[in-house]
Formats: sequence, C-alpha cells, structure tokens
Amino acid sequence: MAETEVRVNRQIVLKQRPTGVVSEDCFDLVEVPLPGPEALADGEALVRNVYLSVDPTQRGWISRDTYLPAIQPGQVIRSGSAGQVVASRNARLPVGSLVSGLTGWSEYAVVGGNMSAVPAGVDLRASMSVLGATGLTAYFGMLDIGRPQQEETVLVSGAAGATGSVAGQIARIQGARVVGLAGTAEKCAWLTRELGFAAAINYRTEDVAARLSETCPNGIDVYFDNVGGRLLELVLDRIRLKARIVLCGAISQYSDEEPSPGPRNLMQLVLQRSRMEGFLVFDYLERYPEAAARLSQWVRAGDLRYRVEVMEGLEAAPRALRALFTGGNTGKLLVQIAPEP
Amino acid sequence: MAETEVRVNRQIVLKQRPTGVVSEDCFDLVEVPLPGPEALADGEALVRNVYLSVDPTQRGWISRDTYLPAIQPGQVIRSGSAGQVVASRNARLPVGSLVSGLTGWSEYAVVGGNMSAVPAGVDLRASMSVLGATGLTAYFGMLDIGRPQQEETVLVSGAAGATGSVAGQIARIQGARVVGLAGTAEKCAWLTRELGFAAAINYRTEDVAARLSETCPNGIDVYFDNVGGRLLELVLDRIRLKARIVLCGAISQYSDEEPSPGPRNLMQLVLQRSRMEGFLVFDYLERYPEAAARLSQWVRAGDLRYRVEVMEGLEAAPRALRALFTGGNTGKLLVQIAPEP
Repeated sequence: MAETEVRVNRQIVLKQRPTGVVSEDCFDLVEVPLPGPEALADGEALVRNVYLSVDPTQRGWISRDTYLPAIQPGQVIRSGSAGQVVASRNARLPVGSLVSGLTGWSEYAVVGGNMSAVPAGVDLRASMSVLGATGLTAYFGMLDIGRPQQEETVLVSGAAGATGSVAGQIARIQGARVVGLAGTAEKCAWLTRELGFAAAINYRTEDVAARLSETCPNGIDVYFDNVGGRLLELVLDRIRLKARIVLCGAISQYSDEEPSPGPRNLMQLVLQRSRMEGFLVFDYLERYPEAAARLSQWVRAGDLRYRVEVMEGLEAAPRALRALFTGGNTGKLLVQIAPEP
Repeated sequence: MAETEVRVNRQIVLKQRPTGVVSEDCFDLVEVPLPGPEALADGEALVRNVYLSVDPTQRGWISRDTYLPAIQPGQVIRSGSAGQVVASRNARLPVGSLVSGLTGWSEYAVVGGNMSAVPAGVDLRASMSVLGATGLTAYFGMLDIGRPQQEETVLVSGAAGATGSVAGQIARIQGARVVGLAGTAEKCAWLTRELGFAAAINYRTEDVAARLSETCPNGIDVYFDNVGGRLLELVLDRIRLKARIVLCGAISQYSDEEPSPGPRNLMQLVLQRSRMEGFLVFDYLERYPEAAARLSQWVRAGDLRYRVEVMEGLEAAPRALRALFTGGNTGKLLVQIAPEP
C-alpha cells in the first residue's frame, strides 16, 4: 500500500440539545480524517463545501424527531450546502462540478445521488437562497397553498427573512397588496422601499393589532405564517371570507420548552369559511425545475430581489443559527467556509 | 270594513342573553296578533309551523353577531322550521303546500321567497333532519372538505348528533373506516350496532387519548369536528400525512364566556402537510337538490339511517335547545307545535 497523506475534515457536531434559544455551547468543532478518493463507494463523490445553510428548521432537528429524524449528540449538524466535487465515482457528479443538497456543517462531505447540479451561470449564493430551499418554499407555499389573487391583501410574517421576503414579492408579482411583519425599522424600510411591500409593521415596537387593522382595512385574504404564536390569533380575527392561512413555520415557538397555547378563535375558520394548511417544500421535488426557472426569470427581470448575508468560517455556523432566532439577519444567512471556485 | 276575528300568534322571544349553558329563563313566550290574509304583501305567505328546529348554532345567534346578525332581546328566536301554507299571495307557495326554511320559534310566520317546497312524498321529519340543514351540512362537509377515501380512517366528534351521525355514515358509504366520539354508552352502541361505525369512544367515561390511539392505530386521515376544544389537540397529534380537519362547529365552546386556548400543536399541520378548513352549509345552496337526492337514495337503500327525537309544544323549545348542550339527545331534536297536516 502506498502511503497516503492524512488530511483532516473539520465538522460541527451536536454536543448537547439546547434549552431555549440555541447557543454556541450546544456544538463542538471536531476534526476527523478526510476520506481519500479510494474510500468512495460506487456512486459516491467527495464534495468540498463552500456555503453552509442555517435555517430555523434546524432548531427542530437538533431537539426532536420531526419530518426527519432528530440529530443525535455526536452527529454532524445536517444542513443545506453548496460546494464543488473534488473526487467522484458518480458520472452525474464529475470532479470540478458545483452541486448543492443536504449535507451538513462539514468542510467535506461524502455524497450520493441526492445532490443537484448547480446549473451553469447560476450564482452559487443565489442557488443557496432565492433559488434554493427558502426560495422554493416561498414559491410553492405562496402559489400552491396561498394562491393570492389580484387586489387581495396578503400578510407575511417573518417578512424580512429568506423565505418571507421571497413569498411577499411573489404575492406582489401576482397583483396582490402585500403587508409584512418584521422586527427592526431597517427591515421594514427594506420591505417597503426595495421589495414593493405596501406596508410593513415592526412587531417589536408597534401595536400590532392596531397596525394590522390600519394596514389591512378590508381584512386579510392570505396569511403566510413563518412565525406562529400569538400573531395567528390577531390575524384570524381579521381574515376575510375564504381566506387561506399558509403554515410555513413557527420560529417564535421552536425555542419553547413547553408548547404555547394555540389561537382561541379557530371558529373564525368556520365563520369565514377559511382554511389553514401546512406544507413542506420536499413534497414538491419534482417541480423544483419549474419553480427555479420562474424564480430566475423574475430575478433577471428585476421583479424579485433577494439579499444574502454571509458569515465567515465553519466556527461561525452556531452563531449564525442563533442569529436567526434573535433577529440578527435580513434575507438569507449563509456561512462561507471556502472560497468560491 | 268587515269585522275580523282577532286571533293570536304565540312566539318565543329572547328575554336576556345567556351566561354559560343556555337556560329557559333566557326566553319569554309572548302572544301577538296573528296577521290576517289581508295583511300579506305581494309575494308573501302565511305559514303555520309544524316542526321547529333546535341547533347548536342558535347558541351563537342569541349571544353575538356571527355569520348572521345577533338576535336582539325581544326578537323571535330564529330557527329552521317546516309547516303548511295557510294563506298566500305567492304563486310558488300555494295554500296547503308544505314548506321549510328559516323562520323562528313561532306558531305562524309571514314568509317571503326564501322558503323551499317540501317535495311530495318526503317525510316532514326527514326534511327537517337527514334532508335538512344538518344532513346537508354533513354531506358537504364530509364530501367536499373531508373527501374520505377507501380504507382511510375518519374520526367524527359529536357523532351521535344530527350532523355527526350522518357525516360518519357518509364516510362509511365512501369506504372509509369510521370512529365516533359520543357522550353515553347508548349513543356509542347506536353508532357501532346500527350505523356501521367501526368503533365508538365514550368521551365522558373513557381515556380519550388512549382510546384514540387504540381505535385509530394508523392515525387519522379525516377529522370531522363538531365539538372543538381539547379534543382537537389530541387529534392533531394523531393525524396522518395530508389529513383533512373539517371544522363544522365547536359545541363544547359555545357556552364559554371566555374563549378557551386553542391546540398547542398546530405545527402538526406542517409536519403532516395537512389542512384544517371551516365551512357553512349556506354556501352550498345551489347544490342542495343534488345533495338531497343522494341522501334520499342512501336512506331508501337502507345505507343511511337517521333518528329524530321530538319534544311537544312551543314552550318546550328552550328546554330542547338546552338539551343539545347537556348531551340529552341522540340524532336530530325537533319541537312539534302542530299536528302534521
């Protein structure tokens, strides 16, 4: 056997499950040997990750079984990622190609058939944001579940986030009047001045009930909810006939040890003959190409804008995840761990 | 002017709004002059009511604005009714014909164009139950919103009530496996022995969570909810992928002065990609004939059974309404105030 240089793969693993808002001491940075090309099985490839995703849903993954099994202590933190193939025994993943998929907070990852090629000419950051899981979530949630019509009033919570900001703009492109909720004056200004929202409500400083009545004087036709919690009750009191409430996430509750009470006024769904529906983007896998094509078109035409914020270095990933829950970011937050190829 | 005999019309009016479970002291029986035929305007008819309906939704009507304006103190209690035309200036409502519609707790009612003819050969009690508002509610709620499929598990709360008992049987006719919740052993026995429910749970005496897991071992595909409240949370924990929750009513909450907290686990709708939807039967007005025809067919074929309980006399109506909230009735409860013609 030839001698092989032993190289190292740095990864972030779960140290302990969080209590309350996730903090950095829940994670460990570990070094493991990097498998050489000879360790790849048929169909596998080795990817050097460039961007790692942080997403609110990871707060669930590290705590409990959800739609995916819980991450166990000692396991690498599962995450979206984009990177470059550096060794391959898979003809669909040639060395040098750019790929994205669900790997983890790890410098290198051995991947199988579940990766997607990043199409030529697509910006790697766009592939991780407006054309990635968050953009696709916004697309299917708004168009398939929310179905906004011309002149309807659409409310989006978490509207300055990666998903909410795209969801709101898609509704606006459909001809709806869009109102967003966000947590800082800067975020609200971004929504109304740059993204074409008709109004924005600062849920930290304003009287949300009063502002909802003011900005949605005829009621709410579609509510795209990223936040959950008390806001839903205020919205239910203001829905119009045949309203659609899109349950996308409940970031306000992911950190709770005890689940909070739900809205006391679900009867509004009866009185207004309305619907509340949850969805997961993974169910739309077959339609990703259609969605990515339309999203790209809107981006090129200048109708759809997106913002990406980048934190540097693998060790920043836990801090980045925490920032999602403390209102620290606008748009999509990524962690960059290698230069773009 | 000829002398006219002054005749009397007895009515039940709202005396005061209820607190908690509705009681008889909220109502007054009053006597007002009965309008003679000469008092009818063009298009109007005078109906002598035979059957009056009592329905949980009336508890809302006497308390607050809902999908209809609140009944004010002094006003006749709005209700479904069936009776015979005794004077008419409306060619569609000839004297002697049987009609049903929304009149009130009143011996006689002046009606306009909103009454439906009871088709020849249709039993008047059937027209007020399985073919009336409650049967139609079950039909549209189950088939249009719930959409049960072969082999699916369908859960119905308030299953021994006028709506629930029909809803459950419609699901069974569609090939689903139906489980019902009811409040007495007799009601449960009726569901399983006579109506073809696969199982019934006595929510007053049994451990509902344990029995739900036992009777729905693979989870719940459709939940037809007449009851609201805590049960919904237990059901959400047991829904299957793409479940449909049909919000029909929330009888457990209509008597509350303060609204109860909602389910803490709405995120289940996301994780299971499921839907919760409310509806009102009035929205399906144009499809009543289709629904009544199919319901009649099922009744004639022996596939759909219904039970009507009758209380006698106008003064019984408040007691009958109260019985709906104390679990006193099985199937449809009617008040008969005149002999069938």
